[in-house]
Amino acid sequence: MTAIDFFYEFASTYSYITAMRIAPLAQAAGVTVRWRPFLLGPIFKQQGWETSPFNLYPAKGRYMVRDCERQCAALGVAFRLPDPFPQNTLTAARVALAALAEGWGEDFSRAVYRAQFAEGRQIGSPDVIGAIVRDLGHDDAVLARAQSNAIKQELRATTEEAQRFGIFGAPSFVAGGELFWGNDRLEQALVYAKR
Amino acid sequence: MTAIDFFYEFASTYSYITAMRIAPLAQAAGVTVRWRPFLLGPIFKQQGWETSPFNLYPAKGRYMVRDCERQCAALGVAFRLPDPFPQNTLTAARVALAALAEGWGEDFSRAVYRAQFAEGRQIGSPDVIGAIVRDLGHDDAVLARAQSNAIKQELRATTEEAQRFGIFGAPSFVAGGELFWGNDRLEQALVYAKR
Repeated sequence: MTAIDFFYEFASTYSYITAMRIAPLAQAAGVTVRWRPFLLGPIFKQQGWETSPFNLYPAKGRYMVRDCERQCAALGVAFRLPDPFPQNTLTAARVALAALAEGWGEDFSRAVYRAQFAEGRQIGSPDVIGAIVRDLGHDDAVLARAQSNAIKQELRATTEEAQRFGIFGAPSFVAGGELFWGNDRLEQALVYAKR
Repeated sequence: MTAIDFFYEFASTYSYITAMRIAPLAQAAGVTVRWRPFLLGPIFKQQGWETSPFNLYPAKGRYMVRDCERQCAALGVAFRLPDPFPQNTLTAARVALAALAEGWGEDFSRAVYRAQFAEGRQIGSPDVIGAIVRDLGHDDAVLARAQSNAIKQELRATTEEAQRFGIFGAPSFVAGGELFWGNDRLEQALVYAKR
Protein backbone atom coordinates (compact mmCIF):
# COMPACT_ATOMS: atom_id res chain seq x y z
CA MET A 1 0.00 0.00 0.00
CA THR A 2 1.13 3.55 -0.72
CA ALA A 3 2.58 5.35 2.29
CA ILE A 4 3.52 8.84 3.43
CA ASP A 5 5.84 9.93 6.21
CA PHE A 6 4.22 12.32 8.71
CA PHE A 7 6.98 14.24 10.53
CA TYR A 8 5.58 15.88 13.66
CA GLU A 9 6.95 17.81 16.64
CA PHE A 10 4.86 17.70 19.80
CA ALA A 11 5.29 21.44 20.45
CA SER A 12 3.92 22.31 17.00
CA THR A 13 0.40 23.74 16.96
CA TYR A 14 -0.23 22.87 13.32
CA SER A 15 1.08 19.32 13.88
CA TYR A 16 -1.68 19.01 16.50
CA ILE A 17 -4.29 19.91 13.89
CA THR A 18 -2.86 17.38 11.44
CA ALA A 19 -2.68 14.66 14.10
CA MET A 20 -6.39 15.18 14.81
CA ARG A 21 -7.43 14.71 11.17
CA ILE A 22 -4.85 12.64 9.29
CA ALA A 23 -6.11 9.12 10.09
CA PRO A 24 -9.56 9.24 8.43
CA LEU A 25 -8.26 11.25 5.45
CA ALA A 26 -5.43 8.80 4.82
CA GLN A 27 -7.74 5.83 5.18
CA ALA A 28 -10.19 7.33 2.69
CA ALA A 29 -7.29 7.96 0.29
CA GLY A 30 -5.94 4.42 0.70
CA VAL A 31 -2.62 5.69 2.04
CA THR A 32 -0.67 4.32 5.02
CA VAL A 33 0.80 6.93 7.38
CA ARG A 34 4.19 6.44 9.01
CA TRP A 35 4.09 8.55 12.18
CA ARG A 36 7.58 10.08 12.62
CA PRO A 37 8.02 12.14 15.80
CA PHE A 38 11.12 14.34 15.65
CA LEU A 39 12.57 17.42 17.33
CA LEU A 40 12.46 20.86 15.73
CA GLY A 41 14.75 22.40 18.36
CA PRO A 42 18.04 21.28 16.75
CA ILE A 43 16.78 22.42 13.32
CA PHE A 44 15.68 25.82 14.67
CA LYS A 45 19.06 26.19 16.42
CA GLN A 46 20.84 25.71 13.10
CA GLN A 47 18.71 28.60 11.76
CA GLY A 48 19.84 30.71 14.72
CA TRP A 49 16.57 30.42 16.65
CA GLU A 50 16.62 29.58 20.37
CA THR A 51 12.80 29.36 20.60
CA SER A 52 9.72 29.09 18.38
CA PRO A 53 9.44 31.63 15.55
CA PHE A 54 6.01 32.40 17.00
CA ASN A 55 7.81 33.83 20.05
CA LEU A 56 10.57 35.49 18.02
CA TYR A 57 8.07 37.25 15.75
CA PRO A 58 5.15 38.42 17.92
CA ALA A 59 2.86 39.53 15.05
CA LYS A 60 3.23 36.06 13.51
CA GLY A 61 2.64 34.47 16.92
CA ARG A 62 -0.56 36.43 17.54
CA TYR A 63 -1.82 35.53 14.07
CA MET A 64 -0.97 31.85 14.58
CA VAL A 65 -3.13 31.67 17.70
CA ARG A 66 -6.12 33.24 15.95
CA ASP A 67 -5.62 31.06 12.86
CA CYS A 68 -5.40 27.89 14.98
CA GLU A 69 -8.57 28.93 16.83
CA ARG A 70 -10.37 29.25 13.49
CA GLN A 71 -8.93 26.02 12.05
CA CYS A 72 -9.72 24.06 15.21
CA ALA A 73 -13.25 25.48 15.42
CA ALA A 74 -13.87 24.32 11.85
CA LEU A 75 -12.52 20.87 12.79
CA GLY A 76 -14.57 20.72 16.00
CA VAL A 77 -11.59 20.43 18.36
CA ALA A 78 -10.52 22.73 21.19
CA PHE A 79 -7.46 24.99 21.03
CA ARG A 80 -5.44 26.82 23.64
CA LEU A 81 -1.80 27.71 23.77
CA PRO A 82 0.01 26.05 26.71
CA ASP A 83 2.00 28.22 29.12
CA PRO A 84 4.94 28.18 28.65
CA PHE A 85 5.01 27.82 24.89
CA PRO A 86 6.75 25.88 23.48
CA GLN A 87 6.75 22.98 25.94
CA ASN A 88 9.77 20.68 26.26
CA THR A 89 8.92 17.68 24.08
CA LEU A 90 11.90 15.37 24.57
CA THR A 91 10.14 12.90 26.87
CA ALA A 92 6.96 12.87 24.78
CA ALA A 93 8.91 12.21 21.56
CA ARG A 94 10.92 9.35 23.08
CA VAL A 95 7.83 7.72 24.62
CA ALA A 96 6.04 8.11 21.28
CA LEU A 97 8.80 6.14 19.54
CA ALA A 98 8.57 3.37 22.16
CA ALA A 99 4.77 3.32 21.90
CA LEU A 100 4.80 3.31 18.09
CA ALA A 101 7.02 0.20 18.21
CA GLU A 102 4.37 -1.40 20.43
CA GLY A 103 1.41 -0.39 18.24
CA TRP A 104 -0.19 2.33 20.39
CA GLY A 105 1.92 5.31 19.41
CA GLU A 106 -0.74 7.04 17.31
CA ASP A 107 -3.22 7.01 20.19
CA PHE A 108 -0.48 8.22 22.52
CA SER A 109 0.50 11.04 20.15
CA ARG A 110 -3.08 12.26 19.80
CA ALA A 111 -3.51 12.09 23.60
CA VAL A 112 -0.37 14.18 24.15
CA TYR A 113 -1.58 16.77 21.65
CA ARG A 114 -5.03 16.95 23.29
CA ALA A 115 -3.48 17.25 26.75
CA GLN A 116 -1.31 20.13 25.57
CA PHE A 117 -3.41 22.08 23.08
CA ALA A 118 -6.94 21.33 24.29
CA GLU A 119 -6.31 21.11 28.06
CA GLY A 120 -3.17 23.24 28.47
CA ARG A 121 -1.34 20.55 30.47
CA GLN A 122 2.44 20.53 31.06
CA ILE A 123 3.47 17.79 28.64
CA GLY A 124 7.15 18.51 29.34
CA SER A 125 6.65 16.82 32.71
CA PRO A 126 7.33 13.04 32.88
CA ASP A 127 4.54 12.85 35.49
CA VAL A 128 2.01 14.23 33.00
CA ILE A 129 3.27 11.88 30.28
CA GLY A 130 2.98 8.98 32.75
CA ALA A 131 -0.61 9.94 33.51
CA ILE A 132 -1.42 10.08 29.78
CA VAL A 133 0.09 6.60 29.33
CA ARG A 134 -1.98 5.16 32.21
CA ASP A 135 -5.16 6.85 30.93
CA LEU A 136 -4.61 4.93 27.68
CA GLY A 137 -4.49 1.68 29.69
CA HIS A 138 -0.74 1.16 29.37
CA ASP A 139 2.00 0.69 31.97
CA ASP A 140 4.06 3.80 32.64
CA ALA A 141 7.18 1.61 32.73
CA VAL A 142 7.37 2.68 29.08
CA LEU A 143 8.93 5.92 30.35
CA ALA A 144 11.98 3.98 31.51
CA ARG A 145 12.19 2.04 28.23
CA ALA A 146 12.00 5.38 26.40
CA GLN A 147 15.30 6.39 28.03
CA SER A 148 17.18 3.52 26.35
CA ASN A 149 20.09 4.28 24.10
CA ALA A 150 18.22 2.67 21.21
CA ILE A 151 15.28 5.08 21.52
CA LYS A 152 17.53 8.10 22.06
CA GLN A 153 19.46 7.17 18.94
CA GLU A 154 16.25 6.57 16.95
CA LEU A 155 15.00 10.08 17.80
CA ARG A 156 18.32 11.63 16.79
CA ALA A 157 18.30 9.63 13.54
CA THR A 158 14.73 10.70 12.73
CA THR A 159 15.62 14.36 13.27
CA GLU A 160 18.70 13.97 11.04
CA GLU A 161 16.61 12.22 8.39
CA ALA A 162 14.14 15.12 8.52
CA GLN A 163 17.00 17.53 7.87
CA ARG A 164 18.22 15.47 4.93
CA PHE A 165 14.71 15.72 3.44
CA GLY A 166 15.04 19.52 3.78
CA ILE A 167 12.49 19.76 6.58
CA PHE A 168 12.51 23.14 8.36
CA GLY A 169 9.14 23.11 10.17
CA ALA A 170 6.27 20.90 11.23
CA PRO A 171 4.14 19.19 10.28
CA SER A 172 5.93 17.99 7.16
CA PHE A 173 5.06 15.14 4.85
CA VAL A 174 7.24 13.14 2.50
CA ALA A 175 5.25 11.50 -0.27
CA GLY A 176 6.72 10.00 -3.42
CA GLY A 177 10.08 11.59 -2.64
CA GLU A 178 8.53 15.08 -2.43
CA LEU A 179 8.39 17.30 0.63
CA PHE A 180 5.16 19.01 1.70
CA TRP A 181 5.13 21.47 4.60
CA GLY A 182 2.22 22.40 6.79
CA ASN A 183 -1.19 21.12 7.80
CA ASP A 184 -2.58 22.87 4.70
CA ARG A 185 -0.60 20.51 2.43
CA LEU A 186 -1.89 17.22 3.91
CA GLU A 187 -4.48 16.70 1.18
CA GLN A 188 -1.96 17.39 -1.60
CA ALA A 189 0.57 15.02 -0.02
CA LEU A 190 -2.05 12.24 0.04
CA VAL A 191 -2.88 12.84 -3.63
CA TYR A 192 0.83 12.89 -4.50
CA ALA A 193 1.45 9.60 -2.68
CA LYS A 194 -1.02 7.89 -5.05
CA ARG A 195 0.56 9.16 -8.28
CA MET B 1 -21.55 44.49 -1.45
CA THR B 2 -19.27 42.63 0.94
CA ALA B 3 -15.59 43.40 0.45
CA ILE B 4 -12.17 42.11 1.45
CA ASP B 5 -8.82 43.84 1.45
CA PHE B 6 -6.12 42.00 -0.52
CA PHE B 7 -2.69 43.19 0.68
CA TYR B 8 -0.01 42.19 -1.81
CA GLU B 9 3.71 42.79 -2.30
CA PHE B 10 5.02 42.51 -5.86
CA ALA B 11 8.10 40.54 -4.77
CA SER B 12 5.95 37.90 -3.05
CA THR B 13 5.68 34.59 -4.88
CA TYR B 14 2.49 33.54 -3.11
CA SER B 15 0.93 36.96 -3.79
CA TYR B 16 1.50 36.15 -7.48
CA ILE B 17 -0.52 32.96 -7.14
CA THR B 18 -3.34 34.79 -5.36
CA ALA B 19 -3.36 37.58 -7.95
CA MET B 20 -3.80 34.98 -10.70
CA ARG B 21 -6.87 33.40 -9.08
CA ILE B 22 -8.63 35.88 -6.79
CA ALA B 23 -10.89 37.64 -9.32
CA PRO B 24 -13.08 34.68 -10.41
CA LEU B 25 -13.24 33.25 -6.88
CA ALA B 26 -14.34 36.58 -5.39
CA GLN B 27 -16.88 37.10 -8.14
CA ALA B 28 -18.36 33.64 -7.57
CA ALA B 29 -18.51 34.38 -3.83
CA GLY B 30 -20.17 37.77 -4.38
CA VAL B 31 -17.30 39.61 -2.69
CA THR B 32 -15.60 42.80 -3.87
CA VAL B 33 -11.80 42.84 -3.65
CA ARG B 34 -9.90 45.97 -2.69
CA TRP B 35 -6.42 45.56 -4.19
CA ARG B 36 -3.91 47.02 -1.71
CA PRO B 37 -0.29 47.00 -2.91
CA PHE B 38 2.14 47.58 -0.04
CA LEU B 39 5.82 47.07 0.80
CA LEU B 40 7.04 44.18 2.94
CA GLY B 41 10.60 45.57 3.16
CA PRO B 42 9.91 47.98 6.06
CA ILE B 43 7.99 45.26 7.93
CA PHE B 44 10.77 42.70 7.41
CA LYS B 45 13.33 45.31 8.56
CA GLN B 46 11.43 45.71 11.84
CA GLN B 47 11.76 41.93 12.29
CA GLY B 48 15.51 42.27 11.73
CA TRP B 49 15.47 40.90 8.18
CA GLU B 50 17.36 42.70 5.40
CA THR B 51 16.07 40.37 2.66
CA SER B 52 13.39 37.75 2.05
CA PRO B 53 13.12 34.95 4.62
CA PHE B 54 13.42 32.60 1.63
CA ASN B 55 17.00 33.87 1.24
CA LEU B 56 17.73 33.96 4.98
CA TYR B 57 16.57 30.34 5.45
CA PRO B 58 17.78 28.33 2.43
CA ALA B 59 15.86 25.12 3.24
CA LYS B 60 12.65 27.16 3.39
CA GLY B 61 13.61 28.94 0.17
CA ARG B 62 14.24 25.69 -1.71
CA TYR B 63 10.94 24.31 -0.48
CA MET B 64 9.09 27.48 -1.48
CA VAL B 65 10.29 27.19 -5.08
CA ARG B 66 9.15 23.56 -5.34
CA ASP B 67 5.84 24.33 -3.63
CA CYS B 68 5.18 27.27 -5.97
CA GLU B 69 6.01 25.07 -8.97
CA ARG B 70 3.41 22.54 -7.79
CA GLN B 71 0.78 25.20 -6.93
CA CYS B 72 1.27 26.99 -10.24
CA ALA B 73 1.17 23.75 -12.23
CA ALA B 74 -2.18 22.93 -10.61
CA LEU B 75 -3.41 26.43 -11.50
CA GLY B 76 -2.09 26.23 -15.05
CA VAL B 77 0.28 29.19 -14.80
CA ALA B 78 4.05 29.29 -15.25
CA PHE B 79 6.50 29.79 -12.38
CA ARG B 80 10.13 30.80 -12.23
CA LEU B 81 12.08 32.69 -9.61
CA PRO B 82 13.51 35.97 -10.97
CA ASP B 83 17.23 36.67 -10.58
CA PRO B 84 17.90 38.52 -8.36
CA PHE B 85 15.21 37.57 -5.89
CA PRO B 86 13.59 39.57 -4.42
CA GLN B 87 13.24 42.29 -7.04
CA ASN B 88 12.95 45.95 -6.03
CA THR B 89 9.20 46.65 -6.10
CA LEU B 90 8.98 50.35 -5.23
CA THR B 91 8.24 51.58 -8.77
CA ALA B 92 5.75 48.77 -9.44
CA ALA B 93 3.86 49.45 -6.21
CA ARG B 94 3.63 53.21 -6.86
CA VAL B 95 2.49 52.72 -10.47
CA ALA B 96 -0.06 50.15 -9.25
CA LEU B 97 -1.59 52.74 -6.91
CA ALA B 98 -1.79 55.28 -9.75
CA ALA B 99 -3.31 52.68 -12.09
CA LEU B 100 -5.81 51.44 -9.47
CA ALA B 101 -7.06 55.04 -9.13
CA GLU B 102 -7.58 55.05 -12.92
CA GLY B 103 -9.34 51.66 -13.05
CA TRP B 104 -6.65 49.51 -14.64
CA GLY B 105 -4.58 48.63 -11.60
CA GLU B 106 -5.71 45.01 -11.36
CA ASP B 107 -4.67 44.30 -14.95
CA PHE B 108 -1.39 46.11 -14.33
CA SER B 109 -0.72 44.11 -11.15
CA ARG B 110 -1.35 40.79 -12.87
CA ALA B 111 0.87 41.86 -15.78
CA VAL B 112 3.73 42.76 -13.40
CA TYR B 113 3.40 39.41 -11.65
CA ARG B 114 3.42 37.51 -14.96
CA ALA B 115 6.43 39.50 -16.20
CA GLN B 116 8.34 38.65 -13.02
CA PHE B 117 7.29 35.13 -12.08
CA ALA B 118 6.38 33.64 -15.47
CA GLU B 119 8.92 35.46 -17.68
CA GLY B 120 11.70 36.29 -15.19
CA ARG B 121 11.83 39.97 -16.22
CA GLN B 122 13.50 42.71 -14.15
CA ILE B 123 10.41 44.43 -12.73
CA GLY B 124 12.61 46.65 -10.56
CA SER B 125 13.52 48.53 -13.73
CA PRO B 126 11.33 51.56 -14.64
CA ASP B 127 11.96 50.68 -18.30
CA VAL B 128 10.39 47.25 -17.83
CA ILE B 129 7.46 48.77 -15.92
CA GLY B 130 7.03 51.30 -18.76
CA ALA B 131 6.94 48.48 -21.32
CA ILE B 132 4.31 46.63 -19.27
CA VAL B 133 2.19 49.80 -19.12
CA ARG B 134 2.42 50.31 -22.89
CA ASP B 135 1.62 46.65 -23.57
CA LEU B 136 -1.61 47.21 -21.62
CA GLY B 137 -2.44 50.11 -23.97
CA HIS B 138 -1.71 52.88 -21.48
CA ASP B 139 0.61 55.89 -21.58
CA ASP B 140 3.85 55.43 -19.67
CA ALA B 141 3.49 59.01 -18.40
CA VAL B 142 1.88 57.23 -15.44
CA LEU B 143 5.43 56.53 -14.21
CA ALA B 144 5.92 60.25 -13.64
CA ARG B 145 2.53 60.59 -11.91
CA ALA B 146 3.51 57.65 -9.70
CA GLN B 147 6.40 59.76 -8.30
CA SER B 148 3.99 62.36 -6.88
CA ASN B 149 4.02 63.06 -3.17
CA ALA B 150 0.40 61.92 -2.98
CA ILE B 151 1.22 58.44 -4.33
CA LYS B 152 4.37 58.13 -2.22
CA GLN B 153 2.35 59.03 0.87
CA GLU B 154 -0.45 56.61 -0.10
CA LEU B 155 2.03 53.71 -0.34
CA ARG B 156 3.55 54.58 3.04
CA ALA B 157 0.06 54.85 4.56
CA THR B 158 -0.99 51.46 3.13
CA THR B 159 2.13 49.80 4.54
CA GLU B 160 1.46 51.41 7.95
CA GLU B 161 -2.18 50.29 7.80
CA ALA B 162 -0.99 46.75 7.04
CA GLN B 163 1.20 46.85 10.15
CA ARG B 164 -1.71 48.09 12.28
CA PHE B 165 -3.73 45.07 11.06
CA GLY B 166 -0.83 42.88 12.31
CA ILE B 167 0.30 41.92 8.81
CA PHE B 168 3.75 40.28 8.73
CA GLY B 169 3.75 38.63 5.28
CA ALA B 170 2.00 38.52 1.93
CA PRO B 171 -0.51 37.92 0.62
CA SER B 172 -2.75 38.88 3.52
CA PHE B 173 -6.48 39.43 3.56
CA VAL B 174 -8.63 41.46 5.94
CA ALA B 175 -12.25 40.27 5.97
CA GLY B 176 -14.81 41.23 8.58
CA GLY B 177 -12.08 42.70 10.78
CA GLU B 178 -10.13 39.41 10.78
CA LEU B 179 -6.67 38.82 9.33
CA PHE B 180 -5.92 35.89 7.03
CA TRP B 181 -2.35 35.20 5.87
CA GLY B 182 -1.30 33.34 2.78
CA ASN B 183 -2.65 32.23 -0.56
CA ASP B 184 -3.99 29.12 1.20
CA ARG B 185 -6.39 31.27 3.26
CA LEU B 186 -8.06 33.06 0.33
CA GLU B 187 -11.09 30.77 0.30
CA GLN B 188 -11.60 31.10 4.07
CA ALA B 189 -11.30 34.88 3.89
CA LEU B 190 -14.01 34.99 1.21
CA VAL B 191 -16.31 32.83 3.35
CA TYR B 192 -15.58 35.00 6.39
CA ALA B 193 -16.39 38.18 4.49
CA LYS B 194 -19.94 36.89 3.89
CA ARG B 195 -20.68 36.02 7.55
